[in-house]
Amino acid sequence: MASVSLHPSIDSGVKPGSGSFTGGTLSCLCTTGTVRLKIKGDVAHNHACGCTKCWKPAGAMFSVVAVVPSDNVEIVENGDKLAVVDSSALIQRHACKECGVHMHGPVERDHAFKGLSFIHPERFAESGSAAPGFAAFVSSVIESGVSPSKMDSIRARFKELGLEPYDCLNPTLMDVLATFAAKKAGTYRE
Amino acid sequence: MASVSLHPSIDSGVKPGSGSFTGGTLSCLCTTGTVRLKIKGDVAHNHACGCTKCWKPAGAMFSVVAVVPSDNVEIVENGDKLAVVDSSALIQRHACKECGVHMHGPVERDHAFKGLSFIHPERFAESGSAAPGFAAFVSSVIESGVSPSKMDSIRARFKELGLEPYDCLNPTLMDVLATFAAKKAGTYRE
Repeated sequence: MASVSLHPSIDSGVKPGSGSFTGGTLSCLCTTGTVRLKIKGDVAHNHACGCTKCWKPAGAMFSVVAVVPSDNVEIVENGDKLAVVDSSALIQRHACKECGVHMHGPVERDHAFKGLSFIHPERFAESGSAAPGFAAFVSSVIESGVSPSKMDSIRARFKELGLEPYDCLNPTLMDVLATFAAKKAGTYRE
Repeated sequence: MASVSLHPSIDSGVKPGSGSFTGGTLSCLCTTGTVRLKIKGDVAHNHACGCTKCWKPAGAMFSVVAVVPSDNVEIVENGDKLAVVDSSALIQRHACKECGVHMHGPVERDHAFKGLSFIHPERFAESGSAAPGFAAFVSSVIESGVSPSKMDSIRARFKELGLEPYDCLNPTLMDVLATFAAKKAGTYRE
């Protein structure tokens, strides 16, 4: 089986995080007027994502995306170049209007993920942030024009990389979402 | 680990289908004025489902539900006792107004599942219909009041029964949904 290319940061193996990443600087792709954000602390729930909305580097089939507390995000340079891609979406993805990179995507709505912001760790200047741990919304790449006939080899490659593939989020996060929904509906029980 | 009770038809093991089931009669629970449907042929995509909308027998944590072509469903007795539970839902679940059993749930909207009807094989008088093959919407049972602390043992029990647990549908059906979405959006590629 020819190897499937999923994302440049994982195609040659998933590099573990250092476990002691204390934060860093995210940059967009612009060589002048670069947008820069400072992130405090490490990322969480880092994963490959096949949804059609997440930013992907040129040629990549999947994005790699993680969360940090929104309070740990600070725009330090050229923030005026950022615009929200789709204000109706749960994740308010702020993209560089010039190069298109999504720099941060806070969740502000009443939701289990409220207070978290989605970022792309590959845009860190520093290495060592927590590695991706699973693949989400895998079937959705079909909506980006990937042939359904490739899905078996895509899922097999993720498993080979140690990233369990899911067509929604992983069980941990799906349980978090269901718990939030249960509390909201008044059906939650310990 | 104490065994978790998921559904009476699978708790003591999944009974394989005969492979030659040619159809049968579904009944509701009423002892008088019983609603009866004739189903032609075997069921497909039979699975345990944790969603909050599917009918479950008394005390069951999951439903067991499958599909047949809607054209293979014929109401033969007391159809006047059927009413649609939620007309805004994708699946038009027709329930017996007296005992509550969902007898058939056609999908009529423009959707990958259009032309299929969801039924509960446990209501067949005859044995031998195709066995459940996976578990869907597992995390959703939290929304019905199942403690999040039980999710590990629930997923482990499904695996033990040979039913892979998913928090959405299984990869085959998720790929079918994504393919339908891609064709509708004009992004589909072979």
